[in-house]
Amino acid sequence: MTKAAVFGTGSWGTTFAMIMAGAGTQTTLWGRRPEIVEAIDRRHENPDYLPGATLPETLRATTDPAEALDGADFVVLAVPSQTLRSNLIGWKPYLPSGAVLVSLMKGIELGTTKRMSEVICEVAEVPQERVAVVSGPNLVGEIIRGQPAATVVACTDERAMERLQEACHLPPWFRPYTNPDVVGVELGGAVKNVIALAVGVAAGMGLGDNVGAMLMTRGLAEISRLGAVLGADPHTFAGLAGMGDLIATCTSPLSRNRTFGKNLGQGMTLAEVIAATKQTAEGVKSCESVLELARKHDVEMPITEVVVAVVHDGMPPSEAAMLLMSRTPKPERYGV
Amino acid sequence: MTKAAVFGTGSWGTTFAMIMAGAGTQTTLWGRRPEIVEAIDRRHENPDYLPGATLPETLRATTDPAEALDGADFVVLAVPSQTLRSNLIGWKPYLPSGAVLVSLMKGIELGTTKRMSEVICEVAEVPQERVAVVSGPNLVGEIIRGQPAATVVACTDERAMERLQEACHLPPWFRPYTNPDVVGVELGGAVKNVIALAVGVAAGMGLGDNVGAMLMTRGLAEISRLGAVLGADPHTFAGLAGMGDLIATCTSPLSRNRTFGKNLGQGMTLAEVIAATKQTAEGVKSCESVLELARKHDVEMPITEVVVAVVHDGMPPSEAAMLLMSRTPKPERYGV
Repeated sequence: MTKAAVFGTGSWGTTFAMIMAGAGTQTTLWGRRPEIVEAIDRRHENPDYLPGATLPETLRATTDPAEALDGADFVVLAVPSQTLRSNLIGWKPYLPSGAVLVSLMKGIELGTTKRMSEVICEVAEVPQERVAVVSGPNLVGEIIRGQPAATVVACTDERAMERLQEACHLPPWFRPYTNPDVVGVELGGAVKNVIALAVGVAAGMGLGDNVGAMLMTRGLAEISRLGAVLGADPHTFAGLAGMGDLIATCTSPLSRNRTFGKNLGQGMTLAEVIAATKQTAEGVKSCESVLELARKHDVEMPITEVVVAVVHDGMPPSEAAMLLMSRTPKPERYGV
Repeated sequence: MTKAAVFGTGSWGTTFAMIMAGAGTQTTLWGRRPEIVEAIDRRHENPDYLPGATLPETLRATTDPAEALDGADFVVLAVPSQTLRSNLIGWKPYLPSGAVLVSLMKGIELGTTKRMSEVICEVAEVPQERVAVVSGPNLVGEIIRGQPAATVVACTDERAMERLQEACHLPPWFRPYTNPDVVGVELGGAVKNVIALAVGVAAGMGLGDNVGAMLMTRGLAEISRLGAVLGADPHTFAGLAGMGDLIATCTSPLSRNRTFGKNLGQGMTLAEVIAATKQTAEGVKSCESVLELARKHDVEMPITEVVVAVVHDGMPPSEAAMLLMSRTPKPERYGV
């Protein structure tokens, strides 16, 4: 029987663990807080992050990383992006040799500008073929209510990719597609949060769906330009992990990043918005690292730039909008 | 001074005429119904299609095609797609030689499976370089309230394209970008209405944003496959006239096609939905011609197929959903 350890009891980590358990994978969740772990393991619920949901009885939980990792074929990582490195250093001694490490995380590390899969390779000292990424239009609030969704599983090792696909395939509820382009799938997941902040700000300012569609289209164009210099397959961005995830994140009221931006657009201060936000809005941190990465490679990302200015440097949303609107018109496609 | 004749007093024809007039183009609207023409010409309003909006005083209207066409540099066509041929035959004697004919229409002709620009070339007997297309994320309900929007102007003649861009550029409210790919821009506009029907049906059935994002992503993939065999530039579909227009049409409650589909998904019969729909939902007619075009070229369009089955052959939405979900998994990208 396939075994998986899922690290992180947030909403996506818990939901993905549910999916794996449902697909017949023997799954153990690791969590830091004993009260959450106990609620999952004993009462089959996660009241903090998935209130009202009933978890499968076969899903176990523990605070002991060695116990979770014992015999695991897949080690699924779902912790906040900026804590991955320090967490993984602690778990490294217990990682089973030969296990595939799977990232559910959507961020770029501050300072190093590394993608999560790069951090995993570096810290766990495993080759690239042992690292996989899962990303797609997967709003947890819908999946948990039993609504269907599809996702993309990426790994450069075909066999590992297909094993992971099987370990999380729960038809017709949850359908994973495979794509060998780890870089593209990962970038799509990381940068869409930044664009969702922009779409949220515009919605908060009362701008309509024409502007939202424009921001998503031009946003995907800037993700594609960044992907081009980092070696991603451009086709990935037209797929579920690119366009699909971007649309779901930018249009759903369930999206944390969109909501964060919307509050800013409606005139709340950054401090007020942060106080009102329970779970991490990944884009708030990763917009800075995405911009740093873009500058390092000389890639123009005008939407990301104004998002950083609004979220971190106090630029008023109205000024940001004017900045974007007054750019010199360019051909629709450049830099790819 | 540049002169334009706009044919059709529906909401988009009237709005585009307003934009042209605002951009300093001397613009005359042609309408069939005297009471609407008089309201536009005398009272600067179009209570039937744009209630509450005030039209520019410089915008004139007439029921006489010869008067509208006199000296026109641009002849903008904004009539229902399936009536274009018969209308244009009547107007042909008055078309100024050298005028550029501009299509705002989003459809494929039933029977011939011709795009609107092809019908124009054929009926007006003008070369391709004299025909332009305007298409993009342009929800009229938002533009008319003064919200910003961008669009794509396409023509194989660069000079004509730039003149048209200038004739409808009203910064910062309305920004036209240029793209020489007439086929791609036109297909994006026509097929998105079909996908919007599918997204509407799913929303009406209570399915969420993950499913909506999936349908849009796979929908754009099938538009791209069709475009590939018809000679479109694949990059066009990643732009405002492809992805941008698709997102706006599929996500906005203002979209007629989405609303039509939503009513069906909620359980109304086709007859009930038609009775409840004031203006044409283009996709209802063009889904059949799009499918015919696809079959003629041996292109797989599974979403279009189920839309035709639901809209014309009485297939229950739940059966359509199961059909789509039970397709064999394919690589994300094929046929392009």
